[in-house]
Amino acid sequence: MRYAILVSYDGSRYQGWQKQGNTANTITEKIETVISRQVGEKIHLTGAGRTDAGVHAAGQVACFDCSTEIEPAVLEGVLADYLPEDIAVQKISNVPMSFHPRFSSVGKIYRYEIREEKTPDVFRRKYQWHLGEELKMESMLIAASMLIGEHDFRGFSSDRHPAHSTVRRIEKIDISRSNGALTMIIEGNGFLYNMVRIIAGTLAAIGTGNMQIEQVEAVLATGDRQLAGITAPAKGLTLLRVLYPAEADPFEK
Amino acid sequence: MRYAILVSYDGSRYQGWQKQGNTANTITEKIETVISRQVGEKIHLTGAGRTDAGVHAAGQVACFDCSTEIEPAVLEGVLADYLPEDIAVQKISNVPMSFHPRFSSVGKIYRYEIREEKTPDVFRRKYQWHLGEELKMESMLIAASMLIGEHDFRGFSSDRHPAHSTVRRIEKIDISRSNGALTMIIEGNGFLYNMVRIIAGTLAAIGTGNMQIEQVEAVLATGDRQLAGITAPAKGLTLLRVLYPAEADPFEK
Repeated sequence: MRYAILVSYDGSRYQGWQKQGNTANTITEKIETVISRQVGEKIHLTGAGRTDAGVHAAGQVACFDCSTEIEPAVLEGVLADYLPEDIAVQKISNVPMSFHPRFSSVGKIYRYEIREEKTPDVFRRKYQWHLGEELKMESMLIAASMLIGEHDFRGFSSDRHPAHSTVRRIEKIDISRSNGALTMIIEGNGFLYNMVRIIAGTLAAIGTGNMQIEQVEAVLATGDRQLAGITAPAKGLTLLRVLYPAEADPFEK
Repeated sequence: MRYAILVSYDGSRYQGWQKQGNTANTITEKIETVISRQVGEKIHLTGAGRTDAGVHAAGQVACFDCSTEIEPAVLEGVLADYLPEDIAVQKISNVPMSFHPRFSSVGKIYRYEIREEKTPDVFRRKYQWHLGEELKMESMLIAASMLIGEHDFRGFSSDRHPAHSTVRRIEKIDISRSNGALTMIIEGNGFLYNMVRIIAGTLAAIGTGNMQIEQVEAVLATGDRQLAGITAPAKGLTLLRVLYPAEADPFEK
């Protein structure tokens, strides 16, 4: 049987969602250990996407297969008791074997937060990039609008030898300001490696005036990573939600 | 010369704002050490109020005297460099010797946050009480309205032998719900020891239906601490702001 889990985590002290090779201090390792002990067989988690070391999630989705039949509510209770306090499984659902966290999904929503104030926000310090400069939001919004739609985002990726298409579709980018920080919400049908962080780094450079708005078009046209901004720090990034068609959403029933 | 500082801190890993007697792991000790080293004399911080171990502040106010003349901006920079990342001094101002963080203030605003959802919020876990039960907000609002105005709040204090008057005035209590949590904002001209946390514990008991709304009147009338709710956990409490008359506000110029 296949089970889907909805999980949130503070990624600050982990090496990311998952690491290839040897066991490491990862989110999957923590969750897999608790579930495996409970069901008495080694289970393996497959996530909707890998988040890097230091990146957070409010709504990551993953699944695992298990020959033992389990009651989702019971397993939710076990996970609440035994997971570290920076990982919280919100929900577990029985799903058909055709469900896959990544292939069944139709998009994702990420948040990237940048602090403008000179002094740090002690409460958000692990969840935002402390740039400490005021940003020209108008310029950033214009630049962001150029990214909307279907484009080849190769220049906005750290993957230098992509094996697959680098064409993605960005549905929207909202930018708002509150409590001394800019919050960027970005929704798309899929994201390349480091894409949100490079977009954040590029928009920040435009916001400080260190980069021209037109540069966004140059990055899209040439696919040249060197023309884009820096890869903004991991800690400012949070995977908010993985999107599924209503009939395939494991948590909407 | 006297200097006022505006400071925010995540109180999670400290023994509180200040401890009497021996040196301890307190907020004041961290700040005093950095300032003393910079100015070359031992300075002593006086705060607007003591926050307990685990309690946070977005806008605590304190002052210190110093015979050396210092440039506030320079000291702000030194503090930014040398304070741990969970303490942030927002501002330093030169103030007249007549200014006192507590005696010059006319009130304070606190926030208390209670999570209703069964699953914890990994990002707010250090800043909210995870009750995990849905609360009847209407009942809590009615009970809160009974606390507004000038009352003897002796029953809402942990101080069993108060040396001074226990009469205080609460200006307002706002309660709102978002992201699975109730946020209570309480403003008053002064607060007794543990008063906000006992009010939060009492309103929570009313919200879960474990206590009747009328109990609030009984606590006020009798001054009996036993009739009130528990002292809600420290980590849900944040000192948001210390209020001063416009002409005496050290940071409004």
